Amino acid sequence: LSAGIKSISFAGAGNVATHLALSFYCAGYDIAGIYSLSVASASVLAEKVSSKVCTTIAELSEHADLVIISVPDYAFGEVLEAIAPSHKYIVHTSGGLDMEVMNGRVSKYGVLYPLQTFSKNTEVSLKKVPFCIEASEKELLDKLRLLASSVSDTVVNINSTQRRILHLSAVFASNFPNSMYSIAEDLLKSENLSFELLHPLILETTRKATLHPPQEVQTGPARRHDLETMKAHEKMLEKTEPYRQIYDLMSRTIQKQSKKEKV
Amino acid sequence: LSAGIKSISFAGAGNVATHLALSFYCAGYDIAGIYSLSVASASVLAEKVSSKVCTTIAELSEHADLVIISVPDYAFGEVLEAIAPSHKYIVHTSGGLDMEVMNGRVSKYGVLYPLQTFSKNTEVSLKKVPFCIEASEKELLDKLRLLASSVSDTVVNINSTQRRILHLSAVFASNFPNSMYSIAEDLLKSENLSFELLHPLILETTRKATLHPPQEVQTGPARRHDLETMKAHEKMLEKTEPYRQIYDLMSRTIQKQSKKEKV
Repeated sequence: LSAGIKSISFAGAGNVATHLALSFYCAGYDIAGIYSLSVASASVLAEKVSSKVCTTIAELSEHADLVIISVPDYAFGEVLEAIAPSHKYIVHTSGGLDMEVMNGRVSKYGVLYPLQTFSKNTEVSLKKVPFCIEASEKELLDKLRLLASSVSDTVVNINSTQRRILHLSAVFASNFPNSMYSIAEDLLKSENLSFELLHPLILETTRKATLHPPQEVQTGPARRHDLETMKAHEKMLEKTEPYRQIYDLMSRTIQKQSKKEKV
Repeated sequence: LSAGIKSISFAGAGNVATHLALSFYCAGYDIAGIYSLSVASASVLAEKVSSKVCTTIAELSEHADLVIISVPDYAFGEVLEAIAPSHKYIVHTSGGLDMEVMNGRVSKYGVLYPLQTFSKNTEVSLKKVPFCIEASEKELLDKLRLLASSVSDTVVNINSTQRRILHLSAVFASNFPNSMYSIAEDLLKSENLSFELLHPLILETTRKATLHPPQEVQTGPARRHDLETMKAHEKMLEKTEPYRQIYDLMSRTIQKQSKKEKV
């Protein structure tokens, strides 16, 4: 840690802040302070990482080399305004916010974006999580690389335009599939079937998609252009909008994707 | 294998037939014959399981206790017509076809439906794959349970109505998520980013969804009702239909799902 960051404060105590703070704490960093609008959340996290609860955002900069702002995008501007302008490094963890939103407010700033889905109560090792870093100057970029490397095997330089696309594609690769699982669970309930029956299928689907380009391992009625089955399925979904609409749109998309492939 | 089935023939040499034939062969069953419209596919499979290629469907019943029909649903009727009516057991492997489609044509019939996504060139262990079984008579049901248990830890009695719902929900849990991965990959290409960056995310998403009800671990802008991010995303997708439409429909679905949860 010699040339790098030694102490870190967090604005925010949500899913991302919690996982980062815990991991950096375990990697030997000093977590100097935690601020959150929810004092309860700040207290829970502060206790886990032997830190103290800050009652104002301005306090965060005291004794911390780096302040990590990890709050919802809509709250970011307000938090940034309240940060004490100082020589300290400031980074955010957002996929959707440009780095330059910090320009003019602080002098040395950057982004530390862990590409993962975090839930507070789900343990997750950061070792395999890609950390996307960006900074306003080389010195900070180097420090962020050192910091991220202490908890992850994959640290990549990603500019703001790329990060925006990454974030959007993560919605397609994670949020939407998870919603599809909810729909599947809901459909199974009508016949008193357990979602657990589908566990091996969804695990295998993901495994295949990480071994081959997903396009190449697409299966199912739409991929086979099995119109009869698709028609039967849409009939079963007749009374369960928006499921029928999703079925129709996704099936047409898969058919288009596989046509493209043939050309 | 004493009281059970000893020899099996296959009508079909596609993904499902291939994986079943290989697994049963490895479990010690005699694969008596393989028929396929594509003689090339039949030959490839027959060689792998020390079987012989049958040139007519009628031949399949010779020396086989059980004939497994594993062909696309649209081809099933024709194959069934050509099966020699005999005392032998006939099953199909389809998620979408009722068992009773065989009624009147053969006397002892059933279903052996492995709930998994199969690609010919992807190895998959059947140990964790649920085998859904159904039969026209208890004796055959017992034999199917014995047979399926020889390759899988999970064998469940599933009637035709349940199987139809299972099959439909499998489309939502496997085919549609995989198509979402293709879209993510496509979006990343525009910024020369590798889909590999998303591998840890999609693996973690699936892991979480098998540990908790998917509804409970839903994340992302739609779940947070983060309208600003959603608007920015839709703007980025403006020129890439049907992606924008999918984003919109799925986001609205997630918002509805999470409202239901709150009530």
